[in-house]
Amino acid sequence: MLQDSAIQDRVAQLKREAARHAVTYIEDGMAVGLGTGSTAKFMIDALGERVAKEGLRIRGIPTSEASAEQAKGLNIPITDFAADPFLDIAIDGADEVQRGSLYLVKGLGGALLREKIVAASARRFVIIVDESKLVDDLGTHAPIPVEITPWGWERAAKLLGDTGAHACKPRMKRDGNLFITDNGNMILDCHYPSIDDPRGLSQSIIDITGVVDHGLFLGMTSEVLVAGLHGIDRLVP
Amino acid sequence: MLQDSAIQDRVAQLKREAARHAVTYIEDGMAVGLGTGSTAKFMIDALGERVAKEGLRIRGIPTSEASAEQAKGLNIPITDFAADPFLDIAIDGADEVQRGSLYLVKGLGGALLREKIVAASARRFVIIVDESKLVDDLGTHAPIPVEITPWGWERAAKLLGDTGAHACKPRMKRDGNLFITDNGNMILDCHYPSIDDPRGLSQSIIDITGVVDHGLFLGMTSEVLVAGLHGIDRLVP
Repeated sequence: MLQDSAIQDRVAQLKREAARHAVTYIEDGMAVGLGTGSTAKFMIDALGERVAKEGLRIRGIPTSEASAEQAKGLNIPITDFAADPFLDIAIDGADEVQRGSLYLVKGLGGALLREKIVAASARRFVIIVDESKLVDDLGTHAPIPVEITPWGWERAAKLLGDTGAHACKPRMKRDGNLFITDNGNMILDCHYPSIDDPRGLSQSIIDITGVVDHGLFLGMTSEVLVAGLHGIDRLVP
Repeated sequence: MLQDSAIQDRVAQLKREAARHAVTYIEDGMAVGLGTGSTAKFMIDALGERVAKEGLRIRGIPTSEASAEQAKGLNIPITDFAADPFLDIAIDGADEVQRGSLYLVKGLGGALLREKIVAASARRFVIIVDESKLVDDLGTHAPIPVEITPWGWERAAKLLGDTGAHACKPRMKRDGNLFITDNGNMILDCHYPSIDDPRGLSQSIIDITGVVDHGLFLGMTSEVLVAGLHGIDRLVP
């Protein structure tokens, strides 16, 4: 690793600052989508702080059981889509952000479907990343996760190969068992040597029967807060 | 009901005959998709008969636990998509068949996703119905079932309303509990007053995040065997 622990600490500190900044967008009375992952954790912490200190009255929809637990522990009220079909804002991390387009790859944490439902429901979708997540071409560092129904997954894997993926492997847990999402589905992590047409690829993947959704988030981002060693950058599409 | 029990018996007999005819398409060595429902049941019975009497060697992929049980009871060997990613033929029933296009509505039995995976995998997709299932306009008799991930279903129901559905109701079991598919999902039964553009509607439904699949089977049918009181008709697109 090029990063030593001092730099890693500094990046974490900057992500925490970016998370605090993102949370200033949240106003009294808002319905808020709560992301999943290490960066979203900072954001939920910062939100809990505002709820405790300022008495901010908001309702959160968490994108995973882990984020739900964290939010409950911080006395952030939880709502659902019956009460709040549209969210004022959602804040989350990302595995890759394409410079310019602000297209995202998400789902390495395994919560892609709930994250996408929340992102699609939000009037404003704010992403927090450190600068190592910025890429010129999607799929550079991260595989594209594809959530599929377990029944007949081998067929879906074969058809994903036809969309240009070099390898599509079922995500496993550390204990060697199959990883199953909160929705009871499997994840295939698909490595693409290059993604020239993200929109076309998105449609080709979605058109495969048995695919529930995938980790390309296109045209959804309102802004990205990038925590870099020189400070926090704010990118808009 | 206009049909008295003598007519119902005659229709059942004709469906059984149509099922027997469909099963003659199956040849030694084939991988065969086995549908779900009352008509598919006749077909699996007829196939079991051929396996027992002629020693026909085939491999079946059933579209539901019920069809798997029936096939096993008849000593029809079961395969999966790892061994057989492509099927030679699949035979199933349908809830509606549009005259001319042979577009289908399927999924009232609750197995739409597996049925669609199997249909999409099959080189030849044969449908058996009685003539009451033939319609000029899809959605005339049957709602369009939409399989969705339970998390956030209220939002999906609202967005399905925007596609023109007058009502989208979660399918319930007779005991009053929510119906859950073999894949752990919910079904919303969506009533459309008219469907002028089935392909456009199909895409609009699929584009809703949280939708896994729906009961419109478009451009998949190889032929339809229609059991009517005057005999069996064979329709091709």
